[in-house]
Amino acid sequence: MKKRYIGVFDSGLGGLTTVREIVSELPDENIVFLGDTLNMPYGSKTKEEIIGFTKHNIEMLRRFDLKALVIACNTSDANARMEVSQAYDLPIFGVIGSAVKEALRVTENNRIGVLATDLTVRSGAYEKQIKELNSDAQVFQVACPLLVPLIEKGELLDDRDHLEEVLRSYLKDLDGKNIDTLILGCTHYDLLMEMTSGIMPGVKIVSSSRCVVNDLKDQLQAEKNCEAPATRKFYVSSKPERFRRMASQIIKDIEIEKIIG
Amino acid sequence: MKKRYIGVFDSGLGGLTTVREIVSELPDENIVFLGDTLNMPYGSKTKEEIIGFTKHNIEMLRRFDLKALVIACNTSDANARMEVSQAYDLPIFGVIGSAVKEALRVTENNRIGVLATDLTVRSGAYEKQIKELNSDAQVFQVACPLLVPLIEKGELLDDRDHLEEVLRSYLKDLDGKNIDTLILGCTHYDLLMEMTSGIMPGVKIVSSSRCVVNDLKDQLQAEKNCEAPATRKFYVSSKPERFRRMASQIIKDIEIEKIIG
Repeated sequence: MKKRYIGVFDSGLGGLTTVREIVSELPDENIVFLGDTLNMPYGSKTKEEIIGFTKHNIEMLRRFDLKALVIACNTSDANARMEVSQAYDLPIFGVIGSAVKEALRVTENNRIGVLATDLTVRSGAYEKQIKELNSDAQVFQVACPLLVPLIEKGELLDDRDHLEEVLRSYLKDLDGKNIDTLILGCTHYDLLMEMTSGIMPGVKIVSSSRCVVNDLKDQLQAEKNCEAPATRKFYVSSKPERFRRMASQIIKDIEIEKIIG
Repeated sequence: MKKRYIGVFDSGLGGLTTVREIVSELPDENIVFLGDTLNMPYGSKTKEEIIGFTKHNIEMLRRFDLKALVIACNTSDANARMEVSQAYDLPIFGVIGSAVKEALRVTENNRIGVLATDLTVRSGAYEKQIKELNSDAQVFQVACPLLVPLIEKGELLDDRDHLEEVLRSYLKDLDGKNIDTLILGCTHYDLLMEMTSGIMPGVKIVSSSRCVVNDLKDQLQAEKNCEAPATRKFYVSSKPERFRRMASQIIKDIEIEKIIG
């Protein structure tokens, strides 16, 4: 049986944080990733352009036999999800819905910050989805148009201090808002996770990459659609209980059976 | 396509050190392990008994669809290999040949110690195979009849000090022999690896478990008979080189291709 693929796309590097989560949580899955670096950054494009890029990316990925698709780009999810979700006979997982659910699960004061691209903020997708699930919640969005271009330019490697300065200036907009939860509403911002925690101590940071992969994993497991990991069977001809005690010191999570023969 | 199994047997816990190496080196392989705890310890049995146990173990494991078999028991390999190697249409990997090759590769003074069970020492298998490959080598064998029973009894957890005392008394036999390499000629002794290095600083310790799994891996890879790991493909629509530099910070060993579409 040929393994099928999980397709993942983003405008660029950010989607790799989603891939990294898939590799960690679903290590047996085949993955095909597409970074649309030609059209990056998405955050400064029009809604119509994003819909076109999104459809094109999905068409490219569908050259592979996909079992599921992850829109690992908040801007694409915010602006083109409706237009593509009906068009393909494929389970499509978007980052925003997963991040919203997680943020509402962890917030204690219902005051939630969102960092996102300009186009994601203007789409209102985060605010709308949060309010739909909890009308008491207050949402404080900050558009961060420079972050994706600076990350893609390599500033994480070359000029971390400048990148941190820019991030700090965006986060200043949240001063006095008393948020207890902050959604990184762009997969690129996962690369700034530590930097963000450092600037906002005590605030719960929600990664859209991590959340969408958790939902993907739950779904595949519920459908029993995960790729089978390697099977390891352990038999002894006598005294399985006694054997198990020491065996678990050598190999974790070991099930020992007594062989009958 | 149903995955086939690598079969592994030993008298008991020692073979799990071999399984541990397979899990680490060949993580996609299915494994079926049999510990013949009913007849353990093998080291104090007769050659005829060992041949009978070995055949029985192989018959049990062949209930699974095996692609290869590892005799993870030096005593069985030393005493029954000839009798079984022709009888089964199956690649059979024994610990001794692999350990011998590795010991001769790492020794600088051709003076090699071997710790093994009584029956392995009496079989002369190590000495014979070492001399066949290098007639100048000198081999110093020490039979350690107590080690397997004490390990299986759980002394590694319950009475480490006593176990170390016993090990020290066996290693005393190598005093003044000027060996630079010591083969752990019983897979159980891999559990005493650190203890042994501590008592014999500067001596290269050769693990028969590690060696046989390296040989198994080389063979499966040469035959392209390894189970396929998950495939991960990465495409960008533009500037793959520039993308690669940052991408490798996020996911290691990443190959980026430019998609044509």
